[in-house]
Amino acid sequence: MTELLSLERPVREGGIHALPAPYLLFLGDIVEPGYAKTAFGLRDWAGDRCLGEHALPAATVTTGLRRMTPAEAAAKGARAMVIGVANPGGLIPPAWMPALLAALDAGLDLIAGMHAQLSTLAPLRELAARRGRRLIDLRVPPTDLPIASGRKRTGRRLLTVGTDCALGKKYTALAITRGLVTRGVDATFRASGQTGIMIAGDGIAIDAVVADFAAGAAELLSPDATPDHLDVIEGQGSLFHPSYAAVSLALLHGSQPDLFVVCHQPGREEMLGAAGYRVPLVEAVIEQTLMLGRLTNPAIRCAGVSLNTSGMPANAADRAIAWTSAHLDLPAADPIRGGRAFERLLDTCQA
Amino acid sequence: MTELLSLERPVREGGIHALPAPYLLFLGDIVEPGYAKTAFGLRDWAGDRCLGEHALPAATVTTGLRRMTPAEAAAKGARAMVIGVANPGGLIPPAWMPALLAALDAGLDLIAGMHAQLSTLAPLRELAARRGRRLIDLRVPPTDLPIASGRKRTGRRLLTVGTDCALGKKYTALAITRGLVTRGVDATFRASGQTGIMIAGDGIAIDAVVADFAAGAAELLSPDATPDHLDVIEGQGSLFHPSYAAVSLALLHGSQPDLFVVCHQPGREEMLGAAGYRVPLVEAVIEQTLMLGRLTNPAIRCAGVSLNTSGMPANAADRAIAWTSAHLDLPAADPIRGGRAFERLLDTCQA
Repeated sequence: MTELLSLERPVREGGIHALPAPYLLFLGDIVEPGYAKTAFGLRDWAGDRCLGEHALPAATVTTGLRRMTPAEAAAKGARAMVIGVANPGGLIPPAWMPALLAALDAGLDLIAGMHAQLSTLAPLRELAARRGRRLIDLRVPPTDLPIASGRKRTGRRLLTVGTDCALGKKYTALAITRGLVTRGVDATFRASGQTGIMIAGDGIAIDAVVADFAAGAAELLSPDATPDHLDVIEGQGSLFHPSYAAVSLALLHGSQPDLFVVCHQPGREEMLGAAGYRVPLVEAVIEQTLMLGRLTNPAIRCAGVSLNTSGMPANAADRAIAWTSAHLDLPAADPIRGGRAFERLLDTCQA
Repeated sequence: MTELLSLERPVREGGIHALPAPYLLFLGDIVEPGYAKTAFGLRDWAGDRCLGEHALPAATVTTGLRRMTPAEAAAKGARAMVIGVANPGGLIPPAWMPALLAALDAGLDLIAGMHAQLSTLAPLRELAARRGRRLIDLRVPPTDLPIASGRKRTGRRLLTVGTDCALGKKYTALAITRGLVTRGVDATFRASGQTGIMIAGDGIAIDAVVADFAAGAAELLSPDATPDHLDVIEGQGSLFHPSYAAVSLALLHGSQPDLFVVCHQPGREEMLGAAGYRVPLVEAVIEQTLMLGRLTNPAIRCAGVSLNTSGMPANAADRAIAWTSAHLDLPAADPIRGGRAFERLLDTCQA
């Protein structure tokens, strides 16, 4: 096993993935933009790590990046091809294989965050071994993680938490990081999920870690830093989600955040994938995050609320943001819309 | 991998370990009774599954069970040899190998709950494959576990929770099960850790499950049952432990208990392995368990307190039990001491 592992898991510091870049984004034969979220996320948030895109003739979706073959990308300095699309079921269809093999042949590593793992496909494994290339499956649990110590680390930390899954915790953390860096703050985005890791170039997929080590992985993710440094940590799940609350708690305890931002989508009523479970109020999430977060950081406080208003007209979004801010007496903003509301949220994140 | 997995992980119902019995208990070359806790636990709580013990000549510890070789045990119907001792570091020393190989040779499976895995040792792997025997590593994460659904299941459930790790959650669950079964209650002990699994003969090591699936594993552990059936579920960790709270929360949410018993060791001041973290008050654990447990079972309530008074003289233990019961207005008992206090605790568990 050991040889295989070192081939498939490029790690540094005991379990943190560190990815080869720049990337060529692979779009497969995708015709539905909703399945290309990873590719769009990489284009929007890690543009400097993306050289171009590669798609099969059947594909109709594009990121707008320059189209090139794996060989052309390799000649321009690409180091890996990232599977930037998912298909229903998270499988790797046979139609993609020639392109994946061509990438290995051209000297690129392959990176995937899907449930189906690259390393389970014999033709990829064999060619990768022959060419000395790596198959990087971001859902493979890292090895050699420590048990959390609970020791207080130096530097400052901010964690995004949520009323539910999949409503903008990653985007919020990225937007806050970008906004603060623009202001000259020494801030780093810390990725805890597959797409976040591709964007940041490193990180740990917390939900893929064995439960006993999940808080330890979160500790590793945001190490000791200088006093004015801020780690902005991508949250996962929700403390109120019956399937994933444990992942959220491990991340909260291990991150020991000084600040947290609650992410919420107005109008979402039922928890994703949990029939009968109502989305909690933002104030309930604030209260529970404070109560549980105090275990590892007694000074934890809420910096504000991030609203995902992507499905709302601009005036309704503005009203929801203003109402939330007034009602909770906290900054509230939609980071994607930005504006003065977001600048006020950045003020408290910076303070 | 697939062939290897089916060899090494005897599972039923997607991930629950189901162990071959009766057992021969292997004591290695142990001279320190503290390292033979697993063997003693099996003798005390699963005596009907234990045929005898096998030790190397250097061993000075005994369970009092009949000594026999693996071949003798196999002739009497044993189906597996269980490694019933740990040594510092959790390794399998070379001195044990001849006995382990002899057990496989005699037709026994091998069962271990140590950090070092049987299946990483080539001589064991090879002989097991040749003889068609299984190497059962209880710390290997089960595969094919479901994501928790949060769906309310039929039947009743009791979970033991703790102010810290390693203070009697397993023994409390076992003693409550035994006490209730003696009273004619239809109760089943559900094991969530390695030793518990060996005792019960099946279960899932929750702390070895990937975080995303931990609550799902807990759901699987106590399936739908008849309305008067009670599952008594072995707890893990503590909601107040900075390393393991996520495991405890997954177990709480997935178990959706109607009742819980708080396990506590009077006099323990610092959390195990977490320097600077004070053991919480029993009432804090009650409050937080109620608050978090309500997510998946709004009717959750505290049945009482189990005190581990093993280090105290009898009169001090009695005083601690009486004080705790009066102070919290709840039944309190040391299940190992039993007596009227424990009968009162059983009354509320049965009610």
